[in-house]
Amino acid sequence: MSKESALIAALRALAPHPAARGLADDCAVLDFGTETLILTHDMMVEGVHWLAGQDMADVAWKLVATNLSDLASKGADPVGVLLGFTLGNDDTRFLAGLEQALNTFSVPLLGGDTVSANGPRSLGLTALGRATCRPVPDRRGARRGDGLWLTGPVGAAMLGFEALRDNTGADSLAFRRPVPRLVEGRALAPHVTAMMDVSDGLLIDAARMADASGLTLAIESASVPFPANLPSTRRDEAMRWGDDYELLFTLPSDATPPIPAHRIGHAVEPKGSSVTIDGAVPHGTLGYTHD
Amino acid sequence: MSKESALIAALRALAPHPAARGLADDCAVLDFGTETLILTHDMMVEGVHWLAGQDMADVAWKLVATNLSDLASKGADPVGVLLGFTLGNDDTRFLAGLEQALNTFSVPLLGGDTVSANGPRSLGLTALGRATCRPVPDRRGARRGDGLWLTGPVGAAMLGFEALRDNTGADSLAFRRPVPRLVEGRALAPHVTAMMDVSDGLLIDAARMADASGLTLAIESASVPFPANLPSTRRDEAMRWGDDYELLFTLPSDATPPIPAHRIGHAVEPKGSSVTIDGAVPHGTLGYTHD
Repeated sequence: MSKESALIAALRALAPHPAARGLADDCAVLDFGTETLILTHDMMVEGVHWLAGQDMADVAWKLVATNLSDLASKGADPVGVLLGFTLGNDDTRFLAGLEQALNTFSVPLLGGDTVSANGPRSLGLTALGRATCRPVPDRRGARRGDGLWLTGPVGAAMLGFEALRDNTGADSLAFRRPVPRLVEGRALAPHVTAMMDVSDGLLIDAARMADASGLTLAIESASVPFPANLPSTRRDEAMRWGDDYELLFTLPSDATPPIPAHRIGHAVEPKGSSVTIDGAVPHGTLGYTHD
Repeated sequence: MSKESALIAALRALAPHPAARGLADDCAVLDFGTETLILTHDMMVEGVHWLAGQDMADVAWKLVATNLSDLASKGADPVGVLLGFTLGNDDTRFLAGLEQALNTFSVPLLGGDTVSANGPRSLGLTALGRATCRPVPDRRGARRGDGLWLTGPVGAAMLGFEALRDNTGADSLAFRRPVPRLVEGRALAPHVTAMMDVSDGLLIDAARMADASGLTLAIESASVPFPANLPSTRRDEAMRWGDDYELLFTLPSDATPPIPAHRIGHAVEPKGSSVTIDGAVPHGTLGYTHD
């Protein structure tokens, strides 16, 4: 177990509150008066979560979008965000991107803190949402026989990252400016048996859903949506790359979702592997892990 | 205007939401269903907010305590915290202190995120509370004639910091393990006209309350409580040092607080200086500023 895994495990042990369904990988769900509050906190570090020299407007957008994606996976309406910001030399670009993202998603900045520090900058964002549907969906509810669905293609962020890194001039928006599936999440929440966002890679996130639900998710690769410009030789890779922020969800086998989505497989009894692809156990690393 | 002031001003301009009463110096107050939510986010950076080599158990305690102090100044009951954590070599000490603080103040860890990064570590904590009294007190409500009160001495953290820094063996607990005035804040909230915690120094925080309320706060130095071991020559300094986390509040002139506190002055019409000490304008820097 890596240092980070050990710490997260220790933090989880410190967090027996039923609201803390997960640390670093899920939202807190908290009944508060007559409402249900959804809370998430994600960090981004220079050189780890963004390329050194990347436009800070894109970094700000992504910080907001990734946190809102967590809310989307709960079917929550965003209520506001709190920002933890390390000052740098291009703060005006950060502010410009922050304002764009907050305006685009109609989310107010409620507060936060700024600090000065040397070394790689780190940013934190807490996003607060209001549940629109109870029980609030999570990754634990998939049942045998359920269909497995995905709201959109995986692999676009990978291509965008490569375009940006290699300065090819190709479109990198999918990597720089992900769009949280807030509308889709809200529409899906009353219908799904389980739901989460795909942030670390389709296979690893599907495996997490499978493990949390105590079953195996059988994925049919021919049904998985990919971007049109993805070479067919890279489909396996695209299923292991993250940052696409599509929603992965399960529905009863005879149900269809209220919004456009792709049925990519179904849930079966536990088979020794959390996920299978076309009936086989996937080889190698399933995606980005925090280890 | 410093870079940080400029950024905070820009962030404030981005945050027209009425819940965002301040950034970096106040909590967000948000009606949520039948309840009122109080939110705050503070960061700590290695080498800035704690001494390199300091016991991380103390740092964890302080991170929790300073955020809960913000809730205390609103008379709020803590509901939980979310942690943004940069991994280091002494995480077990951090965890030990975190657990102690959360247990002491009966606050659950709801979630968070951990990252790896090089350079000075930064930590963020979001604290969430429930208002116990509405309207929720803030720093804007002081009225002319009000008495100005303080829950406890200022200067203890300064002495504690020096003991720690100089390794004198003297007691440094006040600096390392501040206690948020949660019980006092809750008892005071229904009675005060204005309230805030003293985090950056008595004089500067009083000046902020005075400015927000549009008046002058006249402090009588002979009434300000100091620790017994503070040399009398250092009282002026102690009023400009922060980290004591006592509550500063105003009450109608004929009112007395429901908990032990010290009446240190009163509010008068604006006199050209936000604060006066024994009738005179204080010289020099009033306390720690984020500039």
